[in-house]
Amino acid sequence: MTIAIVGGTGPEGSGLALRWAQAGETVIIGSRDAKRAAETVAKLNQQGDGGRAGLARAISGGENTTACQSADIVVLTVPFEVQAETLKHLKPSLRPGQILVDTTVPLAASVGGRATRTLGVWQGSAAQQAAELVPDGVPVVAAFHNTSAQVLLGDGSVDCDVIVCSDDKEAAKRVRALARKIPGVRALDGGKLENAHIVEQITALLVGFNIRHKGHSGLRITGLPPEAYDL
Amino acid sequence: MTIAIVGGTGPEGSGLALRWAQAGETVIIGSRDAKRAAETVAKLNQQGDGGRAGLARAISGGENTTACQSADIVVLTVPFEVQAETLKHLKPSLRPGQILVDTTVPLAASVGGRATRTLGVWQGSAAQQAAELVPDGVPVVAAFHNTSAQVLLGDGSVDCDVIVCSDDKEAAKRVRALARKIPGVRALDGGKLENAHIVEQITALLVGFNIRHKGHSGLRITGLPPEAYDL
Repeated sequence: MTIAIVGGTGPEGSGLALRWAQAGETVIIGSRDAKRAAETVAKLNQQGDGGRAGLARAISGGENTTACQSADIVVLTVPFEVQAETLKHLKPSLRPGQILVDTTVPLAASVGGRATRTLGVWQGSAAQQAAELVPDGVPVVAAFHNTSAQVLLGDGSVDCDVIVCSDDKEAAKRVRALARKIPGVRALDGGKLENAHIVEQITALLVGFNIRHKGHSGLRITGLPPEAYDL
Repeated sequence: MTIAIVGGTGPEGSGLALRWAQAGETVIIGSRDAKRAAETVAKLNQQGDGGRAGLARAISGGENTTACQSADIVVLTVPFEVQAETLKHLKPSLRPGQILVDTTVPLAASVGGRATRTLGVWQGSAAQQAAELVPDGVPVVAAFHNTSAQVLLGDGSVDCDVIVCSDDKEAAKRVRALARKIPGVRALDGGKLENAHIVEQITALLVGFNIRHKGHSGLRITGLPPEAYDL
């Protein structure tokens, strides 16, 4: 499976790239600027080799549209303020059968406000905005909003559940399997894509905890049978 | 400390009453109907005595306004569709120095929709609506949205963090201390009352998990230093 990470030079994208490359997946870092992608790739390949968990497979990189071409799964990890613009730019490079994973959180910081507040998105959520901008036949799956970039970039287990929302059950299942490749992560079916509205906002709450308590917070869902995490 | 639970005949209010009475607090169940309050009181006093954890102090009950009169803390556990009406009715009975704890979740079920969706509240959240309806000098603290009523009514430890939001830091601190009296619960400072917007919506997500997986879900925040739970 080949995973392209659009905006992969940012901390969240880099962290996911590192974890999946450690798990043996083929990861391509995408950036608006191929040179920046190459710099991040060099850094991550070095970090992965030098760290406690070596990379099972070296990461590669390229311009965003190039990165998408050979990908089965395209993971969008850009800030909200460039989400729509990036998707419009990518649209001709996406094709039916690929999955778009949207990790975007519409933080008010996007318009100069606080990272502890969110913006209202007309479609209901950043994920639903993404769904309007992809070609027909490309399902959108919302996930990885609540996983701390700092924790992903570290060596330790990730103490966080990933809540996965999509209107395409098969695509959601594949993304839950991908989430589980990150040590410590449990993946949960969060229902329809519209529920991303809630999962996106949880990030603003976690940012508040991080500011108040100088932590890298995440969340775990309790009280569910073990099967809930295995599907 | 005396706690009045308005709407305490419902499952969430009854569960909180039981846990606090077990912890030795003075609890008064309030209802629109004094007779219904008395029935719930009889049931809870019996359940508490018969269960594994006996009541340290017997629960009493009365009509909502009567219940509020001697309370230090008034906990509102009514469905969203009667929240505003109940607060208007209570207003003459509330006085400065009391704290109103709002647990209301604006589920779409309130207007015949789904319990996995929420309604938009003009003020931003049910808690902020409550803040408009209490007398001056009564701080509103939002909490206990995510604790399962079924788990509270059971005998076991409650595997859930309580996120407490308020614009009054002192009142929030008192409510966090109250939350910690429930075995298993950790209480967290969720910041300003406006953040209740997010915490309320998490309940809709948890309801979805409960439906899909037949559980009684809750949540834990991870990645914070221990002090975060002690303040």
